[in-house]
Amino acid sequence: MSPKYTYNHSPQSLSLLISSLCIPHSTSPSTLASKAHTPHSPAESREYPAVVFYPSTTQDVSILLKECHERRIAVTAYGGGTSFGGALSNSGGVCVSFERMAQLLHINADDGDCVVQPGLNWMHLNALLQKSEKGTGLFFPVDPSPQASVGGMIAMSCSGTNAYRYGTMRECVVGVTVVLADGRVVKTKQRPRKSSAGYDLTHLIVGSEGTLGLVTEATLRLVPLPRNLHVGIATFGALEGGVDVVLEVQKSGHVFEALEVADGKQMECLNRSKLSPVNFTETPTLFFKIAGPSKQMVADQINIMKTLCARHKATSLEITDDESRIATLWGARKAMGTALVAMKQSPTDLFIHSDCAVPISKLPALIAGTHDLITAATPPNSRWFCANVGHAGDGNVHSSIICPAEDKELAEAVIKRICRLALSLEGTVTGEHGVGMKLRDVLEEEVGKTGVEIMRGIKEALDPRGILNPGKVFRLENGVGKAKL
Amino acid sequence: MSPKYTYNHSPQSLSLLISSLCIPHSTSPSTLASKAHTPHSPAESREYPAVVFYPSTTQDVSILLKECHERRIAVTAYGGGTSFGGALSNSGGVCVSFERMAQLLHINADDGDCVVQPGLNWMHLNALLQKSEKGTGLFFPVDPSPQASVGGMIAMSCSGTNAYRYGTMRECVVGVTVVLADGRVVKTKQRPRKSSAGYDLTHLIVGSEGTLGLVTEATLRLVPLPRNLHVGIATFGALEGGVDVVLEVQKSGHVFEALEVADGKQMECLNRSKLSPVNFTETPTLFFKIAGPSKQMVADQINIMKTLCARHKATSLEITDDESRIATLWGARKAMGTALVAMKQSPTDLFIHSDCAVPISKLPALIAGTHDLITAATPPNSRWFCANVGHAGDGNVHSSIICPAEDKELAEAVIKRICRLALSLEGTVTGEHGVGMKLRDVLEEEVGKTGVEIMRGIKEALDPRGILNPGKVFRLENGVGKAKL
Repeated sequence: MSPKYTYNHSPQSLSLLISSLCIPHSTSPSTLASKAHTPHSPAESREYPAVVFYPSTTQDVSILLKECHERRIAVTAYGGGTSFGGALSNSGGVCVSFERMAQLLHINADDGDCVVQPGLNWMHLNALLQKSEKGTGLFFPVDPSPQASVGGMIAMSCSGTNAYRYGTMRECVVGVTVVLADGRVVKTKQRPRKSSAGYDLTHLIVGSEGTLGLVTEATLRLVPLPRNLHVGIATFGALEGGVDVVLEVQKSGHVFEALEVADGKQMECLNRSKLSPVNFTETPTLFFKIAGPSKQMVADQINIMKTLCARHKATSLEITDDESRIATLWGARKAMGTALVAMKQSPTDLFIHSDCAVPISKLPALIAGTHDLITAATPPNSRWFCANVGHAGDGNVHSSIICPAEDKELAEAVIKRICRLALSLEGTVTGEHGVGMKLRDVLEEEVGKTGVEIMRGIKEALDPRGILNPGKVFRLENGVGKAKL
Repeated sequence: MSPKYTYNHSPQSLSLLISSLCIPHSTSPSTLASKAHTPHSPAESREYPAVVFYPSTTQDVSILLKECHERRIAVTAYGGGTSFGGALSNSGGVCVSFERMAQLLHINADDGDCVVQPGLNWMHLNALLQKSEKGTGLFFPVDPSPQASVGGMIAMSCSGTNAYRYGTMRECVVGVTVVLADGRVVKTKQRPRKSSAGYDLTHLIVGSEGTLGLVTEATLRLVPLPRNLHVGIATFGALEGGVDVVLEVQKSGHVFEALEVADGKQMECLNRSKLSPVNFTETPTLFFKIAGPSKQMVADQINIMKTLCARHKATSLEITDDESRIATLWGARKAMGTALVAMKQSPTDLFIHSDCAVPISKLPALIAGTHDLITAATPPNSRWFCANVGHAGDGNVHSSIICPAEDKELAEAVIKRICRLALSLEGTVTGEHGVGMKLRDVLEEEVGKTGVEIMRGIKEALDPRGILNPGKVFRLENGVGKAKL
């Protein structure tokens, strides 16, 4: 390993670090274990930080990073722990946990923004907004896993079912305060939405997976709560029908709140999971949300959806504004991920999934091609279970394989083939979950050697000792680094 | 000057460069002079490139940059020449002019995007879309100066009156192919809107003012043409009335097409310029556009605007869907910049203006404070003419001073004070025109010394010899560089 990227994680080095700081910390095994866990991360590959720090202020984080930089100690930030490995301390060292920095600091209702700390959970943020006089009627629209916190959401540039309407974190983060590897602090952008003030440091930090700096404060965009909300589901003989409806909605100029698709297998798994009180038809299904500031506008959109579903031969269509039915139907969509996990027949079974996104017109080709690739790869008489669910409005599909642990290599190989299929369809290998360590090689196929070289150059400029979340997004040097996965 | 940033612009070096390349070029004085001109750039400060190249392909640009990198020759790209200095070859060297790379390459109607070359003018792009069967009903929404070309629009991260509705270039560029200083080529992003594939290289290039790479191809977002278009103007006793209407529109959840304000002086100058066939009341005025896919939706929005204008004591309100009246009213808004130039009483008079943006709620404070600053700075009995026009929906205001050349220092000092006022209101010193050389010092006040250090670090990683548009955005090294302005 290049001396540039050598870490000093000896017990003595870490104990000197701890004693040099007045920041609360823990080295208890259970705490360390709790930070070595993210959803679906197989136990055997877990790696533990040596110590967890709990900063309370930007200054705490600045002092902590300055010390770690000087002592060459790796640092990984931990928020809600919902990313698929992005927050794991794969190189050991320090975990920075943000539970003491979880406040909503300001609501600027007139400007449609708020200022928050990174440890704040997004659902809690929305609850606080509704409770506050200033925030009533506004919400923060990015909706990933319920446990996710703002800092991790920024790091991973996440999204969810609302991204089609309101954008991902890239569109919903106005600016951040970020602490660099050596402890320097920068506020990337002032509060106006629009700015041409030099290089776009905000977007550089959003999605950098904790490798360029730790965010200690963020200004987030807020939008008016949807009014006259309706939720609908339409079923189709083939998934193409649902996708065609989505394509026509795009061209209509109407802006819906959400457009999601699931294939028959995904609906089957939802039924089998019993996570929804309703039993759904096990056929390709389009879930959608319609809302708008006037009743008439919503009525117009409902009529358009009825016309489009009829034109594309929907086998059923339900649109409701009943609150409890809305909760049931959208709750079913939100339960899809958990339903997949419930398909494991043994606790050691694997849940492996893709996160590709393609131009929407190529969604049918991606889904059909994925089906063929999985069918060809499935071992005879195996108990593989495969399903597709996606953010159709964004061209983003999660194809999942639940299979016995011994089929790991086979399943991972087919996911890689799905990634390559997406690339051949002008797509990306990750629409919303990020690169982490697993997608590093296919990232290079996507942005090219030069693309990764640029990223590495930026990393080197901002974090010359490579202490921040080492090995995530790309290898620090070709073939160098603690690159197990 | 640090040897790192030494340029070899000797006649011999340039003639060796020219003879080593098979790319069309010109060294005729009139051509060089044409590239030394941007709007309002005073003649005495013009600096000329030594040679202009006309590449036809990405490969041409790659070979050209590789040679310039090896020979340490500065390179500045030139598109429509409408930025306020960003495209000037202030360090001499090579100008890359993109008129031979001005094609619309693909229209992906189903995905709402198109692929274009950098020399394409945006109005020509929209005309081509309307003429093409595939592009009918779609348009590219960013609307800066009519002469601007896509490459320059990307470099400067420009916007215009449609940005409130559709975003700036940051939101409307899906991805770019960019040639780095040493000739390496990278495609920053695939075609899906949504991606978490590593660092956001697209947003790094958009707004980097030609200092990190030259864009040779871009995928642009297209949106459905507005339907049922109405244009309105409302007048107010005080500008606050108009801004209050804008704030309420934001909160309503209704999305208008454009929300623009002008003060009484700006309306006066429009009248005096005779650029509009209509004579306007010389009082604060709100210009707005309303459109939507259904007539009823637009009728709802018109009613809301009537209510809001009455509530905030508009002194007049006109809303029209008559095509010729729309052209007249919006044409008047679009003529504001030219109208200001027409206020020059002598050809040597200066037209100096700000480009600050603040959170919308602070727009009245910015405009009132600007008025006070200019009043205090205006020399007694002088013929300064000052006016404000702004993209109210984005909190972006251009405050202009037309004054005799001898008042240059005074006027520039007051613009700097306006920038500082914007910063104190949590604003930015440039909402859409970029930093160039004039705003470098206030940029450092905005993003801090660390912010500029990060930008400089990125520049060094991507362009280690500093050949690309040297000295724009920030000085290459503190106190170093050909920094006249």
